[in-house]
Amino acid sequence: MADTIAAPATSDRNTVRVDLDTRSYDIKIGRGLIETAGAEIVSVLPGARLCVIADKTVAGLHLDAFSTSLDAAGIVHTVLTVPAGESTKCFREFERLCDDVLATRLERGDAIVALGGGVVGDLAGFVASATRRGMAFVQVPTTLLAQVDSSVGGKTGINSRHGKNLIGAFYQPVLVLADTAVLDTLPIRDFRSGYAEVAKYGLLGDADFFDWLEVNWKAIFAGGPERDEAVARSCQAKADIVAADELEAGQRALLNLGHTFGHALESAVSYETERLVHGEGVSIGTMLAHEFSARLGLIGEDTVMRVHRHLTAVGLPVRLQDIPGQLPGAETFMDIIAQDKKVSRGSLTFILTRGIGHAFVEKGVDPAIVTEFLKEKLEP
Amino acid sequence: MADTIAAPATSDRNTVRVDLDTRSYDIKIGRGLIETAGAEIVSVLPGARLCVIADKTVAGLHLDAFSTSLDAAGIVHTVLTVPAGESTKCFREFERLCDDVLATRLERGDAIVALGGGVVGDLAGFVASATRRGMAFVQVPTTLLAQVDSSVGGKTGINSRHGKNLIGAFYQPVLVLADTAVLDTLPIRDFRSGYAEVAKYGLLGDADFFDWLEVNWKAIFAGGPERDEAVARSCQAKADIVAADELEAGQRALLNLGHTFGHALESAVSYETERLVHGEGVSIGTMLAHEFSARLGLIGEDTVMRVHRHLTAVGLPVRLQDIPGQLPGAETFMDIIAQDKKVSRGSLTFILTRGIGHAFVEKGVDPAIVTEFLKEKLEP
Repeated sequence: MADTIAAPATSDRNTVRVDLDTRSYDIKIGRGLIETAGAEIVSVLPGARLCVIADKTVAGLHLDAFSTSLDAAGIVHTVLTVPAGESTKCFREFERLCDDVLATRLERGDAIVALGGGVVGDLAGFVASATRRGMAFVQVPTTLLAQVDSSVGGKTGINSRHGKNLIGAFYQPVLVLADTAVLDTLPIRDFRSGYAEVAKYGLLGDADFFDWLEVNWKAIFAGGPERDEAVARSCQAKADIVAADELEAGQRALLNLGHTFGHALESAVSYETERLVHGEGVSIGTMLAHEFSARLGLIGEDTVMRVHRHLTAVGLPVRLQDIPGQLPGAETFMDIIAQDKKVSRGSLTFILTRGIGHAFVEKGVDPAIVTEFLKEKLEP
Repeated sequence: MADTIAAPATSDRNTVRVDLDTRSYDIKIGRGLIETAGAEIVSVLPGARLCVIADKTVAGLHLDAFSTSLDAAGIVHTVLTVPAGESTKCFREFERLCDDVLATRLERGDAIVALGGGVVGDLAGFVASATRRGMAFVQVPTTLLAQVDSSVGGKTGINSRHGKNLIGAFYQPVLVLADTAVLDTLPIRDFRSGYAEVAKYGLLGDADFFDWLEVNWKAIFAGGPERDEAVARSCQAKADIVAADELEAGQRALLNLGHTFGHALESAVSYETERLVHGEGVSIGTMLAHEFSARLGLIGEDTVMRVHRHLTAVGLPVRLQDIPGQLPGAETFMDIIAQDKKVSRGSLTFILTRGIGHAFVEKGVDPAIVTEFLKEKLEP
């Protein structure tokens, strides 16, 4: 039905319901939502007091507007700030925030709000899950990556010395407010990084969406209603998968398309974001997943080229050689992949594809073939 | 049906099913279960590797037998020990254990086992909930208190400088093995402390059970089949309440009969176990809850005396004056009660009773009446 596809992005269209039984919640998407956040939160949590957790960078940009909106709605709130950056996702900050939240005397019906990107969302979500064994939690993601990925699905956590996100909880928010206007001030590199996840949703399960992205990506970057549409469709795609497999027992692994290779790349550069940010790793990883699928005879070179064309058009890196500096050898990459928490009982699981929109979970991939493939890619 | 009541405690009768949808699990109760633990665990978690967390005291008494049983069942396992005592439930041990579990390279389908009392169960359960965002968890409680209370219902956690159990998760085990023979070596004071919770189940919702306890308590202390029966009926009582209200939104609060006063007493003596252990606080708190209910005209003095008679018969303390040393004044107690995490939106919630087996949740109790009542009890 063409009229449905062409319908304008209204505020109703841009509410995505995440359907998880008693833990269901809405993701609201639109320009200027931070200015109306107070009213949105009151409607879901009447009478609740809030503790807002923000990183210092985001606080400088958006806290005034957010706080004003809470005041206007009569919401009593306190603010806790954390340093920006991945190293904030640690036990020390977790302990400090739990204690600081308790010091504000919030009760179980009160709420913790994450105002920021993925780091703040993951950390504050874990704090919300653990303090008083679970307080209400609201996400206000301020990066494209957080809006389309980390704020959807309830994964929260911190890093251990053994790896990223190894300590945490599956814990759902009661509300997510994705203000797409805040993305206007996001550095282009961060916007692109988030876009890698947007493209992933098309590639893994929705060929129509990928078609639409090829046509509309410039408007998405420019901030038109297409941006809201892209965020909403991405959230819906993830929400559908999460609703079917909340605890990642099976199909939720599809969301890792491009991530097995991507995580290994991030680890290989020691998470130095000057060299590689998450979405860049996903972009290169997505390319590798398609090239590896082609190597296995699952797709043709035309499909590989089409993905390559789109990712390069938006300015994302697609080759291992696009990463500045030295990379380790194929054997080291395989060690890193084997240590990834998505390893199940020692066998290697990869997300492969039979075509655009047709990714699938392949368990028990032969490590020798992957090693050979990586060797060629590292020394072309 | 008299034949049902009189039926002997067989192994089948002593399995309690905790009915929580996809998180349902069995509690098995009986003498010698530690010797057959390996076979029990394999049947629930085939192929899983284990990380056993035990406190040093329990490890000295029961680890050899437990480990032998795991070896006999072919279960690969490692052991982590923690110091005995409440101070072990802290952020530092939580972090250390999460890291140590990760270092053993356990995967999501593998399991963490708590071998010990409530401290180890609470701490190891929180570690299991958080490591890799949730690993399988098995409880092997070795105190009466842990068997009838803390191992049932999925509450896990650690203490914060702001109070006990303020950081944690609702996280259900996949299996609980309550070996009632290990209670033979439990110090009598600890056995009595656990018994206070057993009596509580009768008092809060099952008058027949309380009748039965009055007749059979000596056999329970001596270790006959009545002990298994008492543990099973206690677990069943708690399981029924937890199944109806897993996240403590309402009726689960009934389990706090005697605990509002009891917790305040433990806090008032700074958790010095030389002066007061948990079950002793519960016993005195249960007495106070009945006396306060009588003061409000809800029950008669005969009921108060009957409860008094049973608790003193088994050797539990029942009066504030039974606690050695000085106690703070009534106002200080009220401050402590107000800080308790079970406070909801500033109003005081107490568990009161209309008779043996008929406890109920009363919200919005007037603090002035409680203060007056406590003053009289402190200075009789």
